[in-house]
Amino acid sequence: MSLPRIAIDAMGGDEGVRVMIEGAALARRRHDRFKFLLVGDEVRIKAALENHPNLRAASEILHCDDVVSGDEKPTQALRRAKTTSMGLAINAVKTGAAGAAVSAGNTGALMAMAKLALRTMPGIDRPALSALMPTLGENDVVMLDLGANTDCDARNLVQFSIMGAAYSRIITGRDHPRVRLLNIGSEETKGTEALREAAAQLNAHSELSLKFDGFIEADKINRGDVDVVVTDGFSGNIALKAIEGTARFVADLLRRSFASSLRSKVGFLISRPATELLKHHLDPNNHNGAVFLGLNGIVVKSHGSASALGVANAVAVTARLLEEKLTERIQAELEHFGAESIRRGGKAAG
Amino acid sequence: MSLPRIAIDAMGGDEGVRVMIEGAALARRRHDRFKFLLVGDEVRIKAALENHPNLRAASEILHCDDVVSGDEKPTQALRRAKTTSMGLAINAVKTGAAGAAVSAGNTGALMAMAKLALRTMPGIDRPALSALMPTLGENDVVMLDLGANTDCDARNLVQFSIMGAAYSRIITGRDHPRVRLLNIGSEETKGTEALREAAAQLNAHSELSLKFDGFIEADKINRGDVDVVVTDGFSGNIALKAIEGTARFVADLLRRSFASSLRSKVGFLISRPATELLKHHLDPNNHNGAVFLGLNGIVVKSHGSASALGVANAVAVTARLLEEKLTERIQAELEHFGAESIRRGGKAAG
Repeated sequence: MSLPRIAIDAMGGDEGVRVMIEGAALARRRHDRFKFLLVGDEVRIKAALENHPNLRAASEILHCDDVVSGDEKPTQALRRAKTTSMGLAINAVKTGAAGAAVSAGNTGALMAMAKLALRTMPGIDRPALSALMPTLGENDVVMLDLGANTDCDARNLVQFSIMGAAYSRIITGRDHPRVRLLNIGSEETKGTEALREAAAQLNAHSELSLKFDGFIEADKINRGDVDVVVTDGFSGNIALKAIEGTARFVADLLRRSFASSLRSKVGFLISRPATELLKHHLDPNNHNGAVFLGLNGIVVKSHGSASALGVANAVAVTARLLEEKLTERIQAELEHFGAESIRRGGKAAG
Repeated sequence: MSLPRIAIDAMGGDEGVRVMIEGAALARRRHDRFKFLLVGDEVRIKAALENHPNLRAASEILHCDDVVSGDEKPTQALRRAKTTSMGLAINAVKTGAAGAAVSAGNTGALMAMAKLALRTMPGIDRPALSALMPTLGENDVVMLDLGANTDCDARNLVQFSIMGAAYSRIITGRDHPRVRLLNIGSEETKGTEALREAAAQLNAHSELSLKFDGFIEADKINRGDVDVVVTDGFSGNIALKAIEGTARFVADLLRRSFASSLRSKVGFLISRPATELLKHHLDPNNHNGAVFLGLNGIVVKSHGSASALGVANAVAVTARLLEEKLTERIQAELEHFGAESIRRGGKAAG
């Protein structure tokens, strides 16, 4: 079976071409049936490919000179959709030249370009940025929205729940993933009106392929007893970054603690396998790859500061979602379970 | 100098009397000039005091039969302000029988009762829940609001900034504590209108005794380069709990990692001083004690699940704020630096 190609925005991210190509090469070693469309400066891409004949054999290069910068406003970047590596990678998904696009560039610009080029699915008002987070349980938890939409109404949150559950089915294999709405308390009376209304709608729509378990507080996200955590993009971004920052904070404290005495240093050396395991769990590179859900096509955001290993993980996430046909699954779920009734049930979106 | 008493709601919290009394006794050993008013069931308080003659000598008991339960609605609890241990502890602050109150009970009820009995200060529209969080720097960071106000406008956020800076002056000794607003990006265009408007007002009011440094993302809260992080109660609660949950998550992972092999166990034993240091940093009991700022009196919330050590820390925070006259300092700042101009500058509060 010939699988669709993955378009890589080779110019995005803090370190640009070298890390993106090295990451794609790492991913290609793990998923050797995949092919790539590498978008960006041809000379630099070719130079980076010198060390990766394996990737070179599976890739085509699409040259362009223009790059979206990290601090550019989305509206400004949008005008250069046809000339930038980010815009052309997304356009390849639109034309069918690629099945999915990966970029480590400006998140706002990526979102704006992807939305304009690929459009939202029928039944979805707004796409959401979604990522996997580690838990104490067997599976990662799907969390969305992580920053694409600052304000969300009840209808958005219900749509995010349906999309998140479709993603989680791929990850957990559960027919009815356990979904919760992020809130500041677990009682029904807590939180904003949008949250209470979304909870009421999710309780009412028992035909959905998900198990709605009510509200969840931010300290329970990674306990392993929830598969999908749904939230507006503002709170989701705050929660995601608070989690990342705390993991890094603890890792820094641990390093200081172990360096505090000779005895600690010896203990550290002996217990290195344990601390390596912890490091692996906490390294955001091992959870890299946030997906825009709700578009007619797959677009994955790699963290701007991700290492080659991080990029490889983002590409692996992309490959898996392509193989498992995430977009088609979400579409089927929306058609099958009366997306229109949810549309009508909610309020008008902005 | 005779210092004012601290009223302790002896009945609140998951474990009630025993932990509250043991915590107060621990605190009393560290702050031996303080006196206590213990509010609750006299028989049980007396029994718990048997083991703590030191505390008994410094305490008076105010008996009552009624207790606010953990899942009670604030409106319901409010009606029993005159008969419950929580209500009577707060009332003691109102009448001057105590200088401050500490409770580990229902947060919503505590907030509602404190607001009704003590009223907000002139120049403050809404009180905010504030706590100290550990950082990699020398001092803890003051964070507010942590859940008292789900929605906040620009004026609320500016008032929180002034109150947080007054708290931070006590903690850091800085004349102009570094204040930032929590947001999902550091660029000026990011976030809600309330955040952008609050930033504009803080930039304009250079006469305030604080240094406004713009926005901060949730992964930078504990880097040690900010003294006060200001946010609405919804986002603040999400951030606080995400931080607490991640710290616990990492501690659990660490435990598992160290238990994974004999070698790791040996390493753990040798490096125990290091891991104990880490545990100390991560234990929420060592950061217990959230203060309602903006009221005409000091009310401190101890975590419902805090240990005796945690309660002792909450009492110690209370003692310090009393000694350092936090309420008077906030009041002076509000009067001195034109609270009225800020009131007029903002929008009407809800």
